[in-house]
Order: sequence, then C-alpha cells, then structure tokens
Amino acid sequence: MGLSVTILGSNSALPTSERNPTAQVLNASGRFFLIDCGEGTQIQLRRNRVHFGKIDHVFISHLHGDHVFGLPGLISSYGLLGRTKDLHIYAVADLERLLIPLINYFSRDLPYKLVFHSINPEVSELIYEDTAMEVITFPVDHRIPTVGFLFREKPKERKINKEICDFYQVPLRVLPKLKKGEDFLRDNGESIANERLTFPAPPSRSYAFCTDTRVNSSIIEVVRDVDLLYHEATFLSDQEELAFKTFHSTARQAADVARKANAKKLLIGHFSSRYKDLAPFLVEARAVFEETEIAREGGVFEV
Amino acid sequence: MGLSVTILGSNSALPTSERNPTAQVLNASGRFFLIDCGEGTQIQLRRNRVHFGKIDHVFISHLHGDHVFGLPGLISSYGLLGRTKDLHIYAVADLERLLIPLINYFSRDLPYKLVFHSINPEVSELIYEDTAMEVITFPVDHRIPTVGFLFREKPKERKINKEICDFYQVPLRVLPKLKKGEDFLRDNGESIANERLTFPAPPSRSYAFCTDTRVNSSIIEVVRDVDLLYHEATFLSDQEELAFKTFHSTARQAADVARKANAKKLLIGHFSSRYKDLAPFLVEARAVFEETEIAREGGVFEV
Repeated sequence: MGLSVTILGSNSALPTSERNPTAQVLNASGRFFLIDCGEGTQIQLRRNRVHFGKIDHVFISHLHGDHVFGLPGLISSYGLLGRTKDLHIYAVADLERLLIPLINYFSRDLPYKLVFHSINPEVSELIYEDTAMEVITFPVDHRIPTVGFLFREKPKERKINKEICDFYQVPLRVLPKLKKGEDFLRDNGESIANERLTFPAPPSRSYAFCTDTRVNSSIIEVVRDVDLLYHEATFLSDQEELAFKTFHSTARQAADVARKANAKKLLIGHFSSRYKDLAPFLVEARAVFEETEIAREGGVFEV
Repeated sequence: MGLSVTILGSNSALPTSERNPTAQVLNASGRFFLIDCGEGTQIQLRRNRVHFGKIDHVFISHLHGDHVFGLPGLISSYGLLGRTKDLHIYAVADLERLLIPLINYFSRDLPYKLVFHSINPEVSELIYEDTAMEVITFPVDHRIPTVGFLFREKPKERKINKEICDFYQVPLRVLPKLKKGEDFLRDNGESIANERLTFPAPPSRSYAFCTDTRVNSSIIEVVRDVDLLYHEATFLSDQEELAFKTFHSTARQAADVARKANAKKLLIGHFSSRYKDLAPFLVEARAVFEETEIAREGGVFEV
C-alpha cells in the first residue's frame, strides 16, 4: 500500500516564476486526493505525470484565490476530456455559490456530475471515508474560515501466517475472521490464539495538511503522532511579527508544532514570494525538528 | 519604436505539460497590451520577464475558459502588489457580470480600479487609442461571439533633416509643422518644399490577432497588408472537417489567409493538445505562405 504526497505548488499568494500557488496530491495506492487547487494546477498535474482521471475528490482548505483559482480550468478540462465519474469537492459552502455561475457559463453540459460537500470550518469532523481511508477536518487559525485536513488510513487487518495456518489446517472461510483478530476454534475444541496464526497489522499511516494558519496549540493535539505533517511556513523567524499579523507561521514555528506533536516527518511550504532561496527555511526548521523537508514543486514524499 | 509580441501561451482549450492556454503580450515601446488571459498567465508573465506593472489594457477575444481563466489570479495579484493605476479590460459584456462576484469575494478592497469596456462582437469598431496606437475589433467566426484585434500604429510624423534645416535657418518653432508635412516659408517669401527639409515618416506597423475562428473571407479584408498576422491553426489539414465542425482552422487555411491578405509575416498558434510535435504545422503552412513561424511559448516576434 503506497501513500505519498506530490507537491504541485508550494508558494503563497503571489506565484513566482518558479513556484506555483498551493496544490498537492495525496496518492493512496492509486486513488488520488487533490488538496487545494491554485491557478495552474491542471498544468502542474500534467507536468508531474499525475493520472488526472484518478482524482475523484478535491479538498479545499479555504477560499483565498491562491487555493482555488485552478478549479474552473480543472473542472472545464475534465468536461473536455469526457469525464463521466462524479467529482467531489469539499469546501466551505460559499465555493459552490461562487463556482456554479462560472460552470454554467463556461462549462455548460458537463458530462459528469460535480458534487459539493459543505465543510463546517468551526468544528473537526469526518468528511470522507472509504474502505481504507478517512479524512477529518480541523479548524486552523487564519483571517478567514480555514481548515486543515487529516488523512488517516483505517486500521488494517492482521496478516495471515500461511505456514502456521496450513499446519493447523485452517479452512479458507475462517481467514477473514483471523484477519480481524479472532482466535481459531478447531473441530476438537482446541482454541488457537490469533497471535499464533497471524502477523500484526501494518501500521495505519496518516498525513496532516495545515495551511494557512498561525501556530496554534489545538492543531498540535489533532495532528499528534502523525507520520507526515505539512505545515505552512510563509516566513522566516525574523518576520515572526508579520507572520502573526497576517495569520501565518514561520519555519521555526512549524518545526515547533511538528516537535510538540511528535510528528515523524515535517514538510514546510507556502513560502512568501519575497524569498528566492529556500535553504534558510530548512536550516531554521531543522534546528528545532531535524526531520524537515522543503515542499519543493515536483517533490514526492512518502508518508 | 519597438513593436513586438511575446507568446505566453499558444495551446487550445486543453493545456499540455509544455503549452499553456492562450495569452500574449504586445510590447509597443514599453507599453504592454495583454491579449487573452488563459489560466497561468500571471506565471507566464513572470517566466518571460514581462514587466507586469506596465500592463494597463487587457483585450479578451471571447469568453471561453482557456482565454479568460487567468484573469481572477492576475487581478488579485495586482491588488496584492499594491497597484493603483486603473486596469482596463475589453471584452463582451458578460465578462464583467461573471468576474465581479469573484472579485468582490476574493479580492475585496482592490487598491486600483477595474474599468470594463464592453465590446460589441457583431461589428468592427475602434475600442482603444492613444497618441501612438489604435486597436480595432473585427468579428470572426466561432461558436460563440468572438472578435479579432487589429493593433495599428497611428501615422507617424516625418523626420527632420537637421542638416538642411540648419542650412535654411529653420526656427525651432517651425519644426512641429514640418513634421506634419507643411512647407517652410522663409522671411524673404521663398517657400521650401517639405520634402527637402524632412525624411519620410517611418511606416506605421500593424499586428492582427485572430483566434478562435474558422477561415473567413471578411477577415482577409480587415487584416489586409498587416505586418504580422497571428492566426489560429488548431489542426492540420487532414482534420479540416473537424476544424470546420469545431469552428477552428487548419495550418494551411491560416497560411491561405496570410497569403490572400498580403500579410508580411504569419504566426500560427492555438494548437490542439493532440499534437506533440508542431513541426508539421510549419511545413504545411510554409507550403502556402513561406514567412510563417510557430507561436512558441516564450517566443518574441518583431512586428
């Protein structure tokens, strides 16, 4: 089961010639979740060879232009490409009201259905689940209603120890129960402990996406023990006051969240366009949390 | 006086990993006219080092997404950059109605004024002029109301022949009249012919932009003798039927327009994303009109 995130854009509001506004794709064993959709996302998807057609769910953190202006083009292109599968968009309710007039004008007669799911940015809630994955929102601290997303693999099944199962002549019909942790009752009444017949389930991994936000202790609790944390770092520490004023974070603050939350790895992004060289961000963050990487465009990070 | 066009995007509706949707900039001696504004235009402007702040006028040929989806981001970025000069947008009236709700939501309190100029796509009309340049629309033949743009330098003044003027002791106050073509009347009553005192005015150059359109004989008349003609060539000739059906042109048809209109040079663009290699477009067009170039992204073409 692969779980990785591809960075399509990691800049803040003003794009630069090298860095696009926010968008990324979480690849969960071939199902793709698009997270934010800044201008140029459809082109970035192509450049990074992400299989477009496999995106069925789009999660929008908040309604600032640099996180949504790629949607009209993406929605339109799906129409031109003859998409028929529903496309699900998760965002605060205003997005639907804003997009619908554009879609009705520019993308009449879409061959597929757009399904809007309204997020309540005031609370943490489960907004998506399938057999393997769940997505939970949590409020972050920005100028306008904004949420983070926690992508979490569901608890997995235990793995069958084929050798031992054969030894005890476990029938096939019993295997699903063993995977769920049940013991095996033999015909002679003997009970075989599940731990003998199975291996532990692989760990369930998690990815948390936090942008745009000030550092906030409530976030630390939500993302505790996460495998990979994406946290915005719009500024360096010498601009901490500006960061606070504009409801953003510094690299050091992002690293501090990762450290306190006991994250395994940290990705920082959403850099202000004032910075050409991103190396100082890494230096600053790693001084606090060693396992930090820059969310460089085109970068693919295993969760 | 420089006059050149920079190609920011030359693909048709579906962008590819290498080609952006339509946008280009006409640079008239440091004043920049943006023509169409597909998604990603603001990033393409940066990549091609076009001086952003010098664009005061945006001309939109028609309201298909691949020609306008870059506007919300561009308008928003100008706001973030603290622009104070008016930005003029020339398009059919619907654009204003569609953009205003987005701007009111995403770009509240713009520090500059957006001025919408409504184009009547049914007629040819002068929609812009300054001391040196005029812009004339003309209807083209597409699925929805669409116009082409003819950018034309105004007639220029004759150049002073300093040596001869000194010989005849022409006073400085007379020079503006000479530039306009008047003869010079000396104090002794002798008249000196303007042709002796001045050199001919430099030619007034013109650039015509035609996309998206079927070939159409009325276009040939409007763009007659143009210095540089941009004409769409969405398909190669083997797809002439598809081109007609979708209200587009082939490379051969574009070249035929250039030849019949006696254009000096032809630029072809708006290529269908089905074509990876654009060389066949050049071969096909040059067989009809030798002075053809491909509107490659980042290309700068003198008018």
